[in-house]
Amino acid sequence: MAEGLTIGIDVGGTNLRFGVFRGNDFLDSTRSEVDLREKCGKAPDPESAATLVTTLLTEGIADLRRHHPGIARVGIAFPGFINDDGILLQSPNIPQLIQFDLQTAVRTACQLPVLVENDANAAGYGEFWEERQEQPDLQNLLYVGLGTGVGGGWIQQSLPWRGEHGSAMEIGHIIVVPGGRRCGCGNQGCLEQYASARGVQSSYVELTGTAPDTAVIARMASAGHAEAIRTFQTAGDCLGQALAHILKVSDVGIVRIGGGMSAAWDSFAPAMLQRLDADLIPALRGNVEVKRGNDDDLAGMRGAALLAKQAFLHD
Amino acid sequence: MAEGLTIGIDVGGTNLRFGVFRGNDFLDSTRSEVDLREKCGKAPDPESAATLVTTLLTEGIADLRRHHPGIARVGIAFPGFINDDGILLQSPNIPQLIQFDLQTAVRTACQLPVLVENDANAAGYGEFWEERQEQPDLQNLLYVGLGTGVGGGWIQQSLPWRGEHGSAMEIGHIIVVPGGRRCGCGNQGCLEQYASARGVQSSYVELTGTAPDTAVIARMASAGHAEAIRTFQTAGDCLGQALAHILKVSDVGIVRIGGGMSAAWDSFAPAMLQRLDADLIPALRGNVEVKRGNDDDLAGMRGAALLAKQAFLHD
Repeated sequence: MAEGLTIGIDVGGTNLRFGVFRGNDFLDSTRSEVDLREKCGKAPDPESAATLVTTLLTEGIADLRRHHPGIARVGIAFPGFINDDGILLQSPNIPQLIQFDLQTAVRTACQLPVLVENDANAAGYGEFWEERQEQPDLQNLLYVGLGTGVGGGWIQQSLPWRGEHGSAMEIGHIIVVPGGRRCGCGNQGCLEQYASARGVQSSYVELTGTAPDTAVIARMASAGHAEAIRTFQTAGDCLGQALAHILKVSDVGIVRIGGGMSAAWDSFAPAMLQRLDADLIPALRGNVEVKRGNDDDLAGMRGAALLAKQAFLHD
Repeated sequence: MAEGLTIGIDVGGTNLRFGVFRGNDFLDSTRSEVDLREKCGKAPDPESAATLVTTLLTEGIADLRRHHPGIARVGIAFPGFINDDGILLQSPNIPQLIQFDLQTAVRTACQLPVLVENDANAAGYGEFWEERQEQPDLQNLLYVGLGTGVGGGWIQQSLPWRGEHGSAMEIGHIIVVPGGRRCGCGNQGCLEQYASARGVQSSYVELTGTAPDTAVIARMASAGHAEAIRTFQTAGDCLGQALAHILKVSDVGIVRIGGGMSAAWDSFAPAMLQRLDADLIPALRGNVEVKRGNDDDLAGMRGAALLAKQAFLHD
């Protein structure tokens, strides 16, 4: 037990999840429902928003430490551009947080080694680790997270490739419909506007004029409702188009698709795979395995925890 | 002189160029005009095509060795998908060459250590090396080669990223005009059909019905000819669109554009940079330096030679 336990935290759009791991083994988790975007939006200034986030994370960590005294380190999967020093450069969904040294803030508050990683990279690392149990020689994996938005992670030679500005695999903003729907990034037609939960809802509104929850649209699609089916086909087609671009740049043989919306896999995957197959170059066609993630619920927490363990075990 | 000299060979669409280098210093070169595509197309079978290529390369090497007895190794920049073992998996421009162990064939014929690298990766490495003279900490560079086709190379953490099927940075086949011009890869609307020398010619034909050489169209554009200008604007716009996709996946801060068609930089670059700036995400906008390559003529030979030196110096 000398290596201790690790907390992996997955910071989502509407909740914070805290998991406890011994190595790769999941032991326990807690969850708090918090709309960080809304809460930070009400903060009077960036410092208050940063303090709020730090406090929420630190309280969750303290809570778990009461039950698990052996906690030795913390990994945090956070939505945003994170550099190699764990500084949150920008978070598109929580614009109040800019150039925020989240890693130092939480480390100082909880007096444990802390690593901060982009949420999709962390989930990708979690999937990579799971996949590696089956394929010990695995080196590279692409991860696509379909949630409120669309994120991506690239595990390259067994580590996340973050890019030089923490913006590698910002695939939610690959433009798939030039002149299409307005995106929060300022552009039009970004993948996220078509293949995320919100994007699916927008497609459904365009077809029908009504806006049920994406989960409801997913159930309707499964039940054979024509407009709901078309909505998910649009999502799949846009995703296949973007995946072809991504693979022509990266040439990685394994793609895993996770996040909440991956539950609707059967509704979007056929259109996605058809478009991908059509758009790929012959050398890659049939040579890329695109599947639903193994470890949806835990991938972000697991990946954050494993990255932290790897970074700090020998400290 | 214990380290000896290196030959770097750049295999182009219409010529073979052989350079001699002492480390990074260029000493000498020879060139032979050969249309490999045409010659291999006339070969009765794949083995004859492979033998033809091996012979042409070996003769050029032997020629230079007569003048430079200190040649210790050879690097070959070849257009096609090359794996980590130097096997040419496929060459879209010379379809006769499939699963051809070019590295072993040339090594056996000339009895020197031989390294084979994709031509755009090699040119990217040459540019990287040149750039590194100014920026010793440089780690990553993207290279775009605009020639008969469009190729790409990614130097990542100081080495070419080839991908798992030798197809990384196959950016000439990123689809930029869905439903657009037919491409040799079987798809429609690939970047190569708009931003290569042939692509520029196609655009000009569409506008005017006549097909002068791309170099002529380039001179017309410089002289203010409206259709020629529009032709290069189309090329630039398509390139900017593809670069935005590439940067959202890779997040590399330096892009160098080389190859024969980069001579028309002033005609296509404004449209390219405008489109790139429009399509990028805010976190990358203004943070990527896209410039014309420094070392157009030598980059492929230099990169192949330097990669070979690095691979074999301690053998």
